[in-house]
Parts: sequence; structure tokens; C-alpha cells
Amino acid sequence: MGVDELIFNMAARARAAARQLARLNSNTKNKALLTMADRLLDGAGHIQTENKKDVEAAHKTGLSSAMIDRLTLSDAVMESMAQGLRDVAALPDPVGEVTSMWKRPNGLEVGRVRIPLGVIGFIYESRPNVTVDAAGLCLKSGNAVILRGGSEALNSNLAIAEVVSRALEDAGVPPAAAQVVPITDRKAINTLLALDEDIDLIIPRGGEGLIRFVAENSRIPVLKHYKGVCHLFVDQSADLDMAVDLCINSKVQRPGVCNALETLLVHNAVADDFLPKAAKALEGAEVELRVCPESLKRLPGRKAAAESDWPAEYLDLILAVKVVSGLDEAIDHIAAYSSQHTDAIVTSDYNRARRFLSEVDSSVVLVNASTRFNDGGQLGLGAEIGISTSKLHAFGPMGLTELTTTKFIVFGEGQIRI
Amino acid sequence: MGVDELIFNMAARARAAARQLARLNSNTKNKALLTMADRLLDGAGHIQTENKKDVEAAHKTGLSSAMIDRLTLSDAVMESMAQGLRDVAALPDPVGEVTSMWKRPNGLEVGRVRIPLGVIGFIYESRPNVTVDAAGLCLKSGNAVILRGGSEALNSNLAIAEVVSRALEDAGVPPAAAQVVPITDRKAINTLLALDEDIDLIIPRGGEGLIRFVAENSRIPVLKHYKGVCHLFVDQSADLDMAVDLCINSKVQRPGVCNALETLLVHNAVADDFLPKAAKALEGAEVELRVCPESLKRLPGRKAAAESDWPAEYLDLILAVKVVSGLDEAIDHIAAYSSQHTDAIVTSDYNRARRFLSEVDSSVVLVNASTRFNDGGQLGLGAEIGISTSKLHAFGPMGLTELTTTKFIVFGEGQIRI
Repeated sequence: MGVDELIFNMAARARAAARQLARLNSNTKNKALLTMADRLLDGAGHIQTENKKDVEAAHKTGLSSAMIDRLTLSDAVMESMAQGLRDVAALPDPVGEVTSMWKRPNGLEVGRVRIPLGVIGFIYESRPNVTVDAAGLCLKSGNAVILRGGSEALNSNLAIAEVVSRALEDAGVPPAAAQVVPITDRKAINTLLALDEDIDLIIPRGGEGLIRFVAENSRIPVLKHYKGVCHLFVDQSADLDMAVDLCINSKVQRPGVCNALETLLVHNAVADDFLPKAAKALEGAEVELRVCPESLKRLPGRKAAAESDWPAEYLDLILAVKVVSGLDEAIDHIAAYSSQHTDAIVTSDYNRARRFLSEVDSSVVLVNASTRFNDGGQLGLGAEIGISTSKLHAFGPMGLTELTTTKFIVFGEGQIRI
Repeated sequence: MGVDELIFNMAARARAAARQLARLNSNTKNKALLTMADRLLDGAGHIQTENKKDVEAAHKTGLSSAMIDRLTLSDAVMESMAQGLRDVAALPDPVGEVTSMWKRPNGLEVGRVRIPLGVIGFIYESRPNVTVDAAGLCLKSGNAVILRGGSEALNSNLAIAEVVSRALEDAGVPPAAAQVVPITDRKAINTLLALDEDIDLIIPRGGEGLIRFVAENSRIPVLKHYKGVCHLFVDQSADLDMAVDLCINSKVQRPGVCNALETLLVHNAVADDFLPKAAKALEGAEVELRVCPESLKRLPGRKAAAESDWPAEYLDLILAVKVVSGLDEAIDHIAAYSSQHTDAIVTSDYNRARRFLSEVDSSVVLVNASTRFNDGGQLGLGAEIGISTSKLHAFGPMGLTELTTTKFIVFGEGQIRI
């Protein structure tokens, strides 16, 4: 069977499964999630054997140790995948919720009811645990999913898929609800991205290169973010100790992720006090500073920032620092360089807090809190399938609800339009 | 200035205007809408003179009388455009609504607030009144809009744009909030559809050809429907007189629109009673029937339906008729042939009403009501910018709310992530 034919068949099976999934009640879906969790642990031995093949191949091809770490399905990772499924089972089912209902003057009752999107295409890189996470979230939200992971994780993903598919079947759910593409030919992605009749949404997760490739080649809507160039603005009225703590947490707690801080903006009025304090803490945590000329006056000897530092997503222990004349300049800088992902202000001023919240056009805008809170779990969505920085359909972290849409239902008693 | 440069400039001006529009309060926006309404009536003479040029050219190029009718800005149409703007001014402002807010265990308060999408590209055909409708809805929802109408309405659209732009300026709103593309070169559409950094959403309105062209060439998300193949299923428990009335209203009240009925499905158990009754009423209203073999037994002499009749959108006084064995076959037929636009059941059976509402995967699903109610105004959304049959972002009629998205706002007091 050729690549095209293989993908066409998978998409057709997914479409058929989606129609059945949309009608499943929560009990059946939850039972399937719990069965998947049990079977993953029962079948851990086989999955880990297959995973070892991937890890050994990765060593041979010289993948970075960080990449190999992400690829490895340790006992702890196996347990956390299973726990993730149990957590999703415990979340409320978004499908069937009537989000609002009203009566028209002619007596028609009109409501909006939440329904699954249909078929999701999930395209991702190394981590095989994403296979399980995505399958769980799609199942709970009543969607079928086609999973296309990275070539370096193929053996792991296929072993997981086998277990998942048998668990689904045993729980009375069509096994085509979650299918792993068994080949890693890039042509398979192109074929997938053209099937706009069968697939309703594409979610890519991985490096910027993969995401741009998907966005540029897809005929199906794509929910994505390219990168997170996150800012923290220390206002003149900020509690400076709080500001230092937020800086450190935002930058250092996990520097390699999209909601980590990349640029620190400091109000000129507190630059003398704040910058030495902040530099001491940041440099104590091994953060390299790249500073504007005004910052350099307060932090002599540091590396000067270049224009290319302002739009940079370092994903590393590096921080760009800029002194601004006030809130207006801070907001303008963010409008010019932010990736509309996550931006925060530290302030004790009511009006400036309100203006920052209202005028900064990013998916998550925070007052006196770490940028690291832009995360579905942390914000209370229960789980996260990704983060969107485009405004259509979802803006910010996407939970189960963002994997659904609403249709209109109308109850009449013979009304006609006049 | 070349076409590309012209479009780039318009998009950049729109992007800048969008930032200002997002911050306008409702009073300013409503004042601008009312000023636009007044100025349209004050300037009606000039607009109608320019419109005459378009109408005369249309006569020369031999446009159909229906097309010329849509193109003509009569006094009544001018008045209804102005009234449309006043109606939009009276609607609630969606921007700034906090749709939900909750507290996290660590004390963070997290909310979702409604914000404009940014810049909308509106691509449409002949009716120049759409220029005013779209400008009004986009302004109220805080979005900038770039309007690209049909070549046959260019003089009318430019005259309207001049009036609108001066009204906006006088009301303190950036005139680039609503810009009409002054050329009708198709290249301008291609240029527009590539500007995914400056334009957030494309809405095409017009024939299926235009919409497919836009969908296939756009790098920007598109909200659209290709066509409306709408069904009415007369169940065995239907009130047959009500069913006849709903048939007539759905098919005949305005046959040329997307929510008009195209296929009638009839439960075998009532076919003997219902079909002759329905045929009498429909044929009395000059509707041509194209019938399946089972229908033909009850309606001898009628034209036999071909396979091509089931997916057909006639937009005319023609109706496909099929007898089905029951609800399952009706739902399967709809799943196979419906355009997911509008489908209705006539029944007095509680369980079958519920099953139809739940299992039919269309943007509006009705019980005992005319398909003609799939319309933003009729369903109570206040106004309508279009109808979407794709599920991302909006499914069904789109009102002001569908021209917005939500961002997350977070109120903290120094919380860090642990």
C-alpha cells in the first residue's frame, strides 16, 4: 500500500470512528481511559523494550542528551502517563454542555450545545508520552485522533498504539479513535495536511521548523504557537523584592520552555534600585544578561544587547534587559517584539495594572505573577493539549473545551419565517 | 503604486487602527455608527449617482436582472443600510465581557476576557450594502476591516467608503478602521490572502467559486460555507399539516438562499398520507419535485430523482423527495449528503426528537421549525456577518461575538510556580 493510500484509509477510519465517538456517554469514555491506564502499566515491559530500540538508535545517531532524556520511557514516565489518563477521566466531559439557551419572541427555543470537532491530526516530535496524552484528551472530548510522532520514537509509539487500541476495543470504543501513523516519511505529513474533508483540525507540537512547515502546507485549520518571547515589566510602583522573585521564577525555574521569561523591562524610576538587586539574583542563578545602554550604566561590564536580542527566544539561561521611560514605552516594546504568548507586569498601581491587562495583546497577561503560569493545568483548565497564539478558535492554553465547538439546537412547535 | 504595495499599505494601516479600535469604549463606537448612518442618508444623492454608473455598466455587460436588483441602491436600500447601523449601535458590545473568572488554590485569580480578533478581510460580490453592514459589525466588535467588493459595484463601494471614512474620523475613530480596496484586479485578493501577519481572519461571501478560490489560496484562517443542502425529515409521528406548512415555508419563502430546503425525507409509514398532500401544496407554489422510486409510487408522473439530486443545492423552486424506512435511514442520508448547514425534523416523538438533535452534525438542527431560521437575526444573535459550516472558531450563524476571541487575565500577589 502506498503512503497516500495508507493515509487516506486512516483518515476514512477516523472519520467513521468520530461519528460514533460523538455519541458516547461519559461513562464509556472514562472506562476506556481507565482501561488504557491499566493496560499501559500491564504492558510496560513490552513498551519499554520497544522504547530501548529507539533510545539505542538515538545514541548511535548522536541525538543530544536532552533529546534522549525526552525519548526515554522510564518507569516514572510510564506511571505518569497512566496517571495522566486517570486525571483526564476525572475531568468534566465538555461534550453535551448547553452553553446557553434562550427563547425568541415567536416562541422558538434556541440553544447552543457543545460537540466534538471531529477528527484531529496531531503532529509532534520526540516525546512518546505525548502519544498517550493526546489520545486521552481527544477521546475525552469525543474526537478521533491521528497521531504522527517523530521518526526517532516510532517503535515506542507503535508499541503504545497497540496497547491503546486494544484497550479501546475492550472498553467498547472504536479502536480507530486513536491511530498512530506507522511510517515517518515526510510525504505522509503532506498527504495528511491536504485531507480537509476528513480532518477538522491540525495541532503541531515541536520545534519552530516543524510548526512552520505544518502551517505553510496545511489546507486544514492549524492551532499553534511558533514561540514564546515573554516579557516582565517592573513598574515604578513595584514591590522590588517580589519583582526579583518573579524574575527568577519566570527565567530560571525551567528556562527551556515557551512560557519562560526572555526580556525584562524596567521602569527608569526604579532602575537604580532594582537592576543591581535583580542582576545579583539572576547572575547567582547563572543567567547571562544582555543589556540596553541605560541598563549598562547600572550594570557596568555586562554584555550589550543587540537589536536581535529583543525578538529572541533564548530557551536558555540568557535574559535581555531594557530600561523604559514608563508604561507606554513598555507596552509599545511588547507590541513590537512579543510573540503574543505571555506578558506580565509587577506593580502596586491600580490604574497601570488595569491598563497593562487591557492593552497588552497576548494570550495570557498577568499582574504580579510568574510568566510560568501560562499552562492549562496551572490556570485551571485541567489539562492542556497545546497553546495557541493565533486568535481564531482558541487564544492561549487549550484544554478539553478547546477541542470542541458548539452547534445550535432549535425547539419549535411549527414556527415558520414570515 | 503597484497592487502589492497598495495592499501592504492598507494592511499596515488596518493593523495600526486595530490597536486603537481595541481600546475604544462602546459610547465612541456607537457614536461612530450613528454618525455613519446619518451621513449615509445625507450623502445618499452622491452615492446613488455613483451607483447608477455601476448599474448602467451592468446593463451593458448583460448581468442578470437578479444581479442588477442586488446591485441597485434604491432609497429603500439606503434607508435600510442606515437602519442596520442604528440596530448594531443598539446591540450589546461584546468586547470587555469577562466570560468567566475563577480562583486557583494558590490564590491566583484567572479570568477570560473578550477581545477583538484584530483585522478582518472581507471578500464579497455584488451587493454594495454589504460594505456598510460589514463595516458596522467590525467596528462594533472592535476590529479593523479591509473590504474587497466585486468589480461590478466598485463605484458604489468607493462612494460609500468615502462617506464612512469621514464619519469615522468625525466621531474620533481612525478612518483606517474600514477601508475599501480601490482596485478589482484579482491579484489584489491573492496579495491580501498572503498577509497572515497583518490579517487575522478572512470572511468570503458570494458564489461557491469565489469561496473555493479564497479557501484554497488563503494563508489566513477563513470562515465560510460553500453551500446549504438543507433537509427536512417528516417522521411517522409528525403533525402532517404542520409538516406541509414547514415544507412550504422552508422551500418557497425565499428559494435562492442557503437556508432554503433542498431535500425532503419522508418516513415510509406516513408517505401514503403525506406525499400527495405535500405535493399538492408544493406544486401549487410552482415547485418541481424530483422523486425517489418509493415516492414515485405515491406521486405518479413526477420526474425521477438522479443520484446527482441528493447533494444538489438548487437555490430554485425544485425539491428532491425521498422516502426512508425510518429515523436511522434519515440520519444516514443526512450524514452522507448534507452540507452541515441546516437540517430539521418534524415529529411529535420525544425520543426521536432528541436523537435527531444529538446525532445530526449540522450547524443548526431544528425540531418542528422552518430551516429558514438559520440566520443570526432570527436566532437572536442580533446581526449576522455570515454562516460557518466549518467547526473551528464558529459553527453556524456568526454574530458580533464570533468576531471576538478571549484572552486570559491573571491577578496575582507575587505567586511563583513551584
